[in-house]
Amino acid sequence: MLLPDVRTPTLLLDAAICRRNITRMQEKAASHGLVFRPHFKTHQSRRIGSWFRDAGVTAITVSSVGMARYFADDGWDDITVAFPVNLREAEEIDALAARIRLGVLVESAAAAERLSVLLHAPVDVWIKIDTGYGRSGISFDDADRLGALARVIADAPGLRLRGLLTHGGDTYQAADAADVVQRFTRTRRRMLAAADSLRDDHPRIQISVGDTPGCTLADDFSGIDEIRPGNFVFFDVMQLRRGVCRVEDIAVALACPVVAFHDERSELVLYGGAVHLSREQLVDARGAQNFGLPVPLSAGGWARPLTGASVVRLSQEHGIVQLAAEDRSALSEGDLLGILPVHSCLTAECMKGYRLLDGTVADHYAGAPAASPAPSRSTPSAPADHTPRQEESPS
Amino acid sequence: MLLPDVRTPTLLLDAAICRRNITRMQEKAASHGLVFRPHFKTHQSRRIGSWFRDAGVTAITVSSVGMARYFADDGWDDITVAFPVNLREAEEIDALAARIRLGVLVESAAAAERLSVLLHAPVDVWIKIDTGYGRSGISFDDADRLGALARVIADAPGLRLRGLLTHGGDTYQAADAADVVQRFTRTRRRMLAAADSLRDDHPRIQISVGDTPGCTLADDFSGIDEIRPGNFVFFDVMQLRRGVCRVEDIAVALACPVVAFHDERSELVLYGGAVHLSREQLVDARGAQNFGLPVPLSAGGWARPLTGASVVRLSQEHGIVQLAAEDRSALSEGDLLGILPVHSCLTAECMKGYRLLDGTVADHYAGAPAASPAPSRSTPSAPADHTPRQEESPS
Repeated sequence: MLLPDVRTPTLLLDAAICRRNITRMQEKAASHGLVFRPHFKTHQSRRIGSWFRDAGVTAITVSSVGMARYFADDGWDDITVAFPVNLREAEEIDALAARIRLGVLVESAAAAERLSVLLHAPVDVWIKIDTGYGRSGISFDDADRLGALARVIADAPGLRLRGLLTHGGDTYQAADAADVVQRFTRTRRRMLAAADSLRDDHPRIQISVGDTPGCTLADDFSGIDEIRPGNFVFFDVMQLRRGVCRVEDIAVALACPVVAFHDERSELVLYGGAVHLSREQLVDARGAQNFGLPVPLSAGGWARPLTGASVVRLSQEHGIVQLAAEDRSALSEGDLLGILPVHSCLTAECMKGYRLLDGTVADHYAGAPAASPAPSRSTPSAPADHTPRQEESPS
Repeated sequence: MLLPDVRTPTLLLDAAICRRNITRMQEKAASHGLVFRPHFKTHQSRRIGSWFRDAGVTAITVSSVGMARYFADDGWDDITVAFPVNLREAEEIDALAARIRLGVLVESAAAAERLSVLLHAPVDVWIKIDTGYGRSGISFDDADRLGALARVIADAPGLRLRGLLTHGGDTYQAADAADVVQRFTRTRRRMLAAADSLRDDHPRIQISVGDTPGCTLADDFSGIDEIRPGNFVFFDVMQLRRGVCRVEDIAVALACPVVAFHDERSELVLYGGAVHLSREQLVDARGAQNFGLPVPLSAGGWARPLTGASVVRLSQEHGIVQLAAEDRSALSEGDLLGILPVHSCLTAECMKGYRLLDGTVADHYAGAPAASPAPSRSTPSAPADHTPRQEESPS
């Protein structure tokens, strides 16, 4: 039996592909003289983090304070939390800022002022800029608001104004590679314009940009100081479809047991659903949904996607695959089929761990506990087994 | 500060609502003379399970072998795994079947024969029937295949043919309450027809049906032996929209810190995204997406949804809420806003734990580990901290 230790849906990781993706992006950043601060929210793994360390990376990006603590406990000491600062976690931010160089994102004077009051340890502050994505941040062309906020931060005790930061997530909506580069160029120009409007008062202002499609495909980074891509470490079908990566660059595949066949509609049922892959989907021009690409598995990894096959429907634990009769005939109940995920960040978040091709495992940050203990209150109604999910203990 | 222990997105659970939902369904099952075998995949919690026990429930449904073990370790001894049997877990199934009364689902003779060979302990076997949902199971009107499979199971050593089981998930696609009842009635008739075709050879064949919309709204259960609804324990916005529940029946709300405002587009940004709520969405007639309904929080729970407000976009950790200016004016950065989830099963699966209104927590099954250990292989490349997610230890 192939991979007998794989009994339930399992996220396979090809370390060789993953390390190649890391090296390639690191070399690109170096060749352009950029600070490479990769986003670790894609993999959330100390073991994969160690491969970045091997490649010379010393500064990282995460998406939550808990994730920052997870990596700080593993020895990372220069971390940006790339999410609008959550004032409810001021205590945790303060404790972390006392241990490492910590960066946070701010987009309002009110939040900056509160932060300055709540913290004792100094933090780096980045102003979140909206370059057109329309999710969060100050609009790049709102020079008045930008100037006012920069002054508040520069004057606030304990806050160190580092620069302007954008996600540039609109490259994720690009139609193809050329469109990605165009959108990235527009983002870069908008960030330069925003920084220029501050340069007189804040000459050392830096520019940080972040998306995998732009950082992978663009060649002109002039004016940019730092890049923060994350997804490139694994890539996925979404990036493949946009021409951002090749199929041989995808570093993860979900191994799923085959549990049933419905030959009359050219379908089979996998043990592998929304709780494993996430519900992220691609929709083609005719409206057909695609939740992942089936690949044959072998002991050494996986082969190219089966022609014309896809995951066409998904419930909580079921995945329905449509595939050709000749591919079906090679499979029985109890066999495994691999699925290249549509969005690897969300699949990794669902699976919370990896199995490498050598049979060893890699960790994944477990997330915040269900609730902080409420120490002021006795809890007689909760028996001992009712514990929330625990974070992994520090190494 | 309201709920100061809530610092990151936290799933609040109103135990009073939840217990009322449990009691109501239990009483309905009893009044119709039905076996009530609730699906525990919605809550996946031993503590919430104890509330079912308080209501007299003794038999349950789960969606994976690991989840069955989680509840068996808590004293549940009559469990059906309502998922097409995964032959890769034969060893785990066998171990569990030796301890408790275990039911599995089969839909092919090949799987039944393999199962009979692989298991030593006897198991209950249900034939999965497709009553029109088109996901998995034997079509209700395929009497030949059904009869052949029933014979194989009845003759296979160690397999006890219990009956026919369907999910009836097409009620989740119903437009309104009347449509739900119509679809449930069709499912019931189709199950009766399928059972009738087997009755001569298998007189004790039972019928088990499963969906929350049908079990909540239907009044005619004649011919049915057992119901397995799950979602009703929490309900959610999807059920509210279909007229299956009232807003005051929804037992969970995600408490999210407010992190930014964009008044120019009547939006605010929440710390609370796809990794917390799941990407499940409702789409209205004009194509607008809705990922949840904002509710004001108080120490005692939550109020009714804010008129006209909804979660309009979702990224990995960000939720974008559109709401009226008067509701916005009551909020500042660092405040909390509650979100009633679109699909509570998936939100609970994302959050992996609950905070009750009294400040105590309830557990949630942690899921299968990233990979089984590969004992035949030394793992020198994996340092000690690279452990997969661990299951909670048995009580």
